[in-house]
Amino acid sequence: MSLIEQYRKVRKLTETICSPLHTEDYVVQPIADVSPPKWHLGHTTWFFETLVLKPYLENYTEFDANFNFVFNSYYESLGARVIRTQRGNLSRPTVNEIYRYRVYVDEAMEVLLSKPVDDTVRTLITLGCNHEEQHQELLWTDIKYILGHNPLFPAYDTALPVQQGRVKEGWIAVKGGLHHIGYQGDGFCYDNELGRHQVYVQPCKIAASLVTNEAYLEFMQQGGYRQFEHWYAEGWDWVRNNQVEAPMYWYNIEGSWFHYTLQGLQPLALHEPVTHVSFYEAAAYAAWKGCRLPTEFEWEVAAAELDWGRRWEWTESAYLPYPGFARVAGPVGEYNGKFMVNQKVLRGASEFTSPGHSRPTYRNFFHPHLRWQLTGIRLAV
Amino acid sequence: MSLIEQYRKVRKLTETICSPLHTEDYVVQPIADVSPPKWHLGHTTWFFETLVLKPYLENYTEFDANFNFVFNSYYESLGARVIRTQRGNLSRPTVNEIYRYRVYVDEAMEVLLSKPVDDTVRTLITLGCNHEEQHQELLWTDIKYILGHNPLFPAYDTALPVQQGRVKEGWIAVKGGLHHIGYQGDGFCYDNELGRHQVYVQPCKIAASLVTNEAYLEFMQQGGYRQFEHWYAEGWDWVRNNQVEAPMYWYNIEGSWFHYTLQGLQPLALHEPVTHVSFYEAAAYAAWKGCRLPTEFEWEVAAAELDWGRRWEWTESAYLPYPGFARVAGPVGEYNGKFMVNQKVLRGASEFTSPGHSRPTYRNFFHPHLRWQLTGIRLAV
Amino acid sequence: MSLIEQYRKVRKLTETICSPLHTEDYVVQPIADVSPPKWHLGHTTWFFETLVLKPYLENYTEFDANFNFVFNSYYESLGARVIRTQRGNLSRPTVNEIYRYRVYVDEAMEVLLSKPVDDTVRTLITLGCNHEEQHQELLWTDIKYILGHNPLFPAYDTALPVQQGRVKEGWIAVKGGLHHIGYQGDGFCYDNELGRHQVYVQPCKIAASLVTNEAYLEFMQQGGYRQFEHWYAEGWDWVRNNQVEAPMYWYNIEGSWFHYTLQGLQPLALHEPVTHVSFYEAAAYAAWKGCRLPTEFEWEVAAAELDWGRRWEWTESAYLPYPGFARVAGPVGEYNGKFMVNQKVLRGASEFTSPGHSRPTYRNFFHPHLRWQLTGIRLAV
Amino acid sequence: MSLIEQYRKVRKLTETICSPLHTEDYVVQPIADVSPPKWHLGHTTWFFETLVLKPYLENYTEFDANFNFVFNSYYESLGARVIRTQRGNLSRPTVNEIYRYRVYVDEAMEVLLSKPVDDTVRTLITLGCNHEEQHQELLWTDIKYILGHNPLFPAYDTALPVQQGRVKEGWIAVKGGLHHIGYQGDGFCYDNELGRHQVYVQPCKIAASLVTNEAYLEFMQQGGYRQFEHWYAEGWDWVRNNQVEAPMYWYNIEGSWFHYTLQGLQPLALHEPVTHVSFYEAAAYAAWKGCRLPTEFEWEVAAAELDWGRRWEWTESAYLPYPGFARVAGPVGEYNGKFMVNQKVLRGASEFTSPGHSRPTYRNFFHPHLRWQLTGIRLAV
Repeated sequence: MSLIEQYRKVRKLTETICSPLHTEDYVVQPIADVSPPKWHLGHTTWFFETLVLKPYLENYTEFDANFNFVFNSYYESLGARVIRTQRGNLSRPTVNEIYRYRVYVDEAMEVLLSKPVDDTVRTLITLGCNHEEQHQELLWTDIKYILGHNPLFPAYDTALPVQQGRVKEGWIAVKGGLHHIGYQGDGFCYDNELGRHQVYVQPCKIAASLVTNEAYLEFMQQGGYRQFEHWYAEGWDWVRNNQVEAPMYWYNIEGSWFHYTLQGLQPLALHEPVTHVSFYEAAAYAAWKGCRLPTEFEWEVAAAELDWGRRWEWTESAYLPYPGFARVAGPVGEYNGKFMVNQKVLRGASEFTSPGHSRPTYRNFFHPHLRWQLTGIRLAV
Repeated sequence: MSLIEQYRKVRKLTETICSPLHTEDYVVQPIADVSPPKWHLGHTTWFFETLVLKPYLENYTEFDANFNFVFNSYYESLGARVIRTQRGNLSRPTVNEIYRYRVYVDEAMEVLLSKPVDDTVRTLITLGCNHEEQHQELLWTDIKYILGHNPLFPAYDTALPVQQGRVKEGWIAVKGGLHHIGYQGDGFCYDNELGRHQVYVQPCKIAASLVTNEAYLEFMQQGGYRQFEHWYAEGWDWVRNNQVEAPMYWYNIEGSWFHYTLQGLQPLALHEPVTHVSFYEAAAYAAWKGCRLPTEFEWEVAAAELDWGRRWEWTESAYLPYPGFARVAGPVGEYNGKFMVNQKVLRGASEFTSPGHSRPTYRNFFHPHLRWQLTGIRLAV
Repeated sequence: MSLIEQYRKVRKLTETICSPLHTEDYVVQPIADVSPPKWHLGHTTWFFETLVLKPYLENYTEFDANFNFVFNSYYESLGARVIRTQRGNLSRPTVNEIYRYRVYVDEAMEVLLSKPVDDTVRTLITLGCNHEEQHQELLWTDIKYILGHNPLFPAYDTALPVQQGRVKEGWIAVKGGLHHIGYQGDGFCYDNELGRHQVYVQPCKIAASLVTNEAYLEFMQQGGYRQFEHWYAEGWDWVRNNQVEAPMYWYNIEGSWFHYTLQGLQPLALHEPVTHVSFYEAAAYAAWKGCRLPTEFEWEVAAAELDWGRRWEWTESAYLPYPGFARVAGPVGEYNGKFMVNQKVLRGASEFTSPGHSRPTYRNFFHPHLRWQLTGIRLAV
Repeated sequence: MSLIEQYRKVRKLTETICSPLHTEDYVVQPIADVSPPKWHLGHTTWFFETLVLKPYLENYTEFDANFNFVFNSYYESLGARVIRTQRGNLSRPTVNEIYRYRVYVDEAMEVLLSKPVDDTVRTLITLGCNHEEQHQELLWTDIKYILGHNPLFPAYDTALPVQQGRVKEGWIAVKGGLHHIGYQGDGFCYDNELGRHQVYVQPCKIAASLVTNEAYLEFMQQGGYRQFEHWYAEGWDWVRNNQVEAPMYWYNIEGSWFHYTLQGLQPLALHEPVTHVSFYEAAAYAAWKGCRLPTEFEWEVAAAELDWGRRWEWTESAYLPYPGFARVAGPVGEYNGKFMVNQKVLRGASEFTSPGHSRPTYRNFFHPHLRWQLTGIRLAV
């Protein structure tokens, strides 16, 4: 697929994801981690405008100078910005204006890509497409949060097909010894996957499949949330301070468990992988089972044999730089490196991950208490 | 005007106020005190549905049972509710649904009022109309806040006529002695105005007009915000903790003062009454001038001679019950009495107050730090 | 009693109150409102040093220049200070050093008072003695808090005599009409009592005695803390946010009620006046009884006939300036006036009030949620 | 040294460290991380009483049943406890009572150790001695905090000898390849050092010595605290939210830099290793130098050639379990494992570390923002 085709495809998918929304759904921000859909629409567009069009398209005229302030996310080097928790307070620009902004930028990108571009520009556009794919996944999770925390529990789309996973039973053995870790090849990858290097991995076993809702329910019913000994100290504080008793989106209605899905409130699907759990819950479940979570290296070594792709899987690994990692100067260098403290690596991909946007070397990362993403649990011993 | 005519007029005005809004503007809640316009539209409707239609219109079918939860404001006796700070997180019900709700309730009210109603119902409808008029004023101030805190500073309506006040110079003398305070007559008033009683007022003088932006600017320029001796201790903490340096909506742009108005960002109108000040600022300004704020009794005694109606005027009086005040049982009794602690009385009315919704005995009340209303300053000595 | 005798007597009583304490008890500050006893010892001494000795005793040498920073309480005009919540973090100066400071200042005061002093100095010393008497009362309540919130519940002094109140039954009628309010005479009073003026009081009745523990227990047992309709909205929030279920210092041990007293943990004394209640609790109790709290004016008019002096009695009145009140320039002017917002007036005196430090015109004031003082409830109708 | 001799030596050192303190210094807790010295004295004693004497000394009578509540630190399995932030609110038990508690427990330990003990008891006593050595280090840092944050800046002991470090210049090369990591031998170590295993380390260089105050000052003077590009995103937030501009205990007095030491406020010792820096500062300094921090594995491999022992050295490594780590059941199992999330490993030892209480395999750990310990910076490339 040519770069312009890739660009068009990515941009179109973003808008398709939003198509069942009402205007109001684009605006709200119930928690800091969840951005309003209209912000995602604008921010991904601002990324191309700021990093590609302004520096590389001759005579390009900015759509609106104020948008830099409104749609910058966290790039310190690109100027002042609306702080993250304030995004839901902005009724303007309207959804229509943002769609016009998208059209304007897309037209300029067509002009730019109507001629050959050099490698720098090609790399930036590929980064922009991957960046937008990440925001597509956030759009799914943020839309789910916005609708799933509304007291009316509206469905996103009742006709959305329900994904059914294959299930691989048993355990995969990982051989001890030196393994190469990190990205190798010519395709796109993020800087945090680079610096392919050797890691000595101890022999171990990894579960072929993810922990199911049914298995997790047993943990709950046997008192898992009330037994401190399974929990990290910070996890135990988190449970008590937030009175956590179940994964996010689980509701006990007159004795039966339901969960909110994009199809609306549904009886809990027992054989599906558990999701919307924090690292604390994942680690406590593993401890309760007499197991542990895999490291990201064990996961990567075993990846070819695992049944993966339905949930982001918490690993025991902290998000740290690979040997030789160095931040690039300028805004692109702010993409990953500055977050390498106090976060956990998640491996795999989820049902919300855009097609093609996953690799066995992909390193996702979140703070250990977060659970609005499609996070899941895989055991290791 | 008949009750049905009054009802129609009030209901229509609410929608007229909202007519220049985009859908997105109806949704956001930048601070807890500012409710989303769509919430006001729904809540005022819910008031009629809950207190009038359900108990008094035979065979009335509730529009949507969930709306009780969504649009209850603070009535403990009417069940659980969305907590106030969460109103801005609700994308549903949509604006269109809420307008349909209004039509549905209005039609039912027409049915109810097509026959004679007894005094209880008449009183509740009158209360509902006055309640909606109060929310009309909140709509104005909340819309102003939503647009005026957007970094794009959109105008509500650039063609909105600018109000120009008359100015009465000098001081009005109030005679010392016993005066009657409180509402007398057959018209509508709130329970907090009742219990007409005698108060002994000391002789004093009250300014005929309000403090202007120009006069307040002088206070600022002479260091008023940096001199603790003019401020109440809590006010001084408020200034420092919030780094307050000017009234809300004032912006210093390259050395000149502007203020946000519904017509957009405008050069500061020097001869207009200062507005959007807290009680702390009002009291500090008065102290700096060697004056004080009037009590609510002094204000009421002098009202006939004052040039009032453009700002809610902070008084020195705490919001307390008049002698003999007693809460009515049930939800109507929650209207005023339970707020009679830690708030200050404001007298007068503002440019945003609905026509007819003001009286010399009207007692408005806010916490002393609030300033998103059209608050102003009148001096006394 | 001569001024020097009065001075000696006051200073001695402060140290007598502290005599049963261990060194450690002088140091801690469990909540912001409770100051460490050693701070009270230093602060009252600093008051005389700063306002009397430095300006009026020739050749006086400051004990330690750092003490101004450590022992200033809130006087903005007297320079920077340790912020209130940090007082409990200071291990130095030690208790012994502070007692030496007291001796040093007392000796200098003896020198000053060995010759006649003018009215200004006399007034300041009288103010200092009254100020120290106020801190004596705080010493009692703060010591009670420090010991009564220690999990070992140590007694202050098991041999301390238990006060037994007289009880006057029934109601006192207050005649409606104009009454004079405020201090009159030549003795000491605070500026907030001055400005004697006329107030029109409605006819009413005031209970001769205070509400007892037994009566309050009935309110609790009948669900008073779970029925929103008796509470101010802010009070109801306070009850729920703090999970309040009883007055401070009440403990239910295996089904029986105990309260912590300076003699240690004791079975609840049913016939004693209830104490350590907030304004919110006082007002809720009164509402539950179908009564209300008196205003400070009603209280003052009836004072001669009331059985008072055992508790500080919450009134319905907000703490506001009397007509003609004006802050004096300089630090003495910061004594009262700057607190006249968001507080409630309490009238009477408590068992912890120093002998002679009470008057029918005395206006004490606290924020409505506070209850570490000996606060109590008197009803009116 | 026999076990009883080791026990006596450790217990005595704890009291020697406290000997220059005034009673008041034992009581205060200025921040949650700093415990009152009297709490350390009691807690280390409670550890022996609870884990050794109660289960293993026949007929042992508990000193005071309430002490379990007062001196438990975080052991969920050992019952309720005073929450950490409340320790500074406890004036009782007094310092004298706690010293009596120490004598009582020491006498019982002498009885226990007058006869041969089995391996379980021996292991617990050794753990208790090492536990007390850890608290000795905390005593030093907490005393420093208590005195160093007092506005009078009292010295702990002006005659305390100042430590002077040797300095080794240059870089130590670490060979790439497989290395064994973790404790090996018969001596004492913590469970987090066990599970000796192979790690593949990339070739690198580690600085022989620590970063000095002089070098760090240059970072400050060249704007290091104002340039976001050197900082982790969380570190940058930490700098701005706390207005951090220098290491803890550094004071700029009229243009010159001083630092508080146990000898009092002293001119900054330029050639000494910088200390009291957070991980964020350490990492930012390293980034500014074009270097990075070593991993804990690189450090352990190079340890024999490093000039270490004066500061706890931040590493880039997150505190995670070694392969095969498993929590022991019961309270001892709560010692380390439950903290293995969101903390950073520090290697080495500091001048405050008790003699003998250090090993090349020792893994200390703190949250990345903390700096009240003697933390320092070593570079790697």
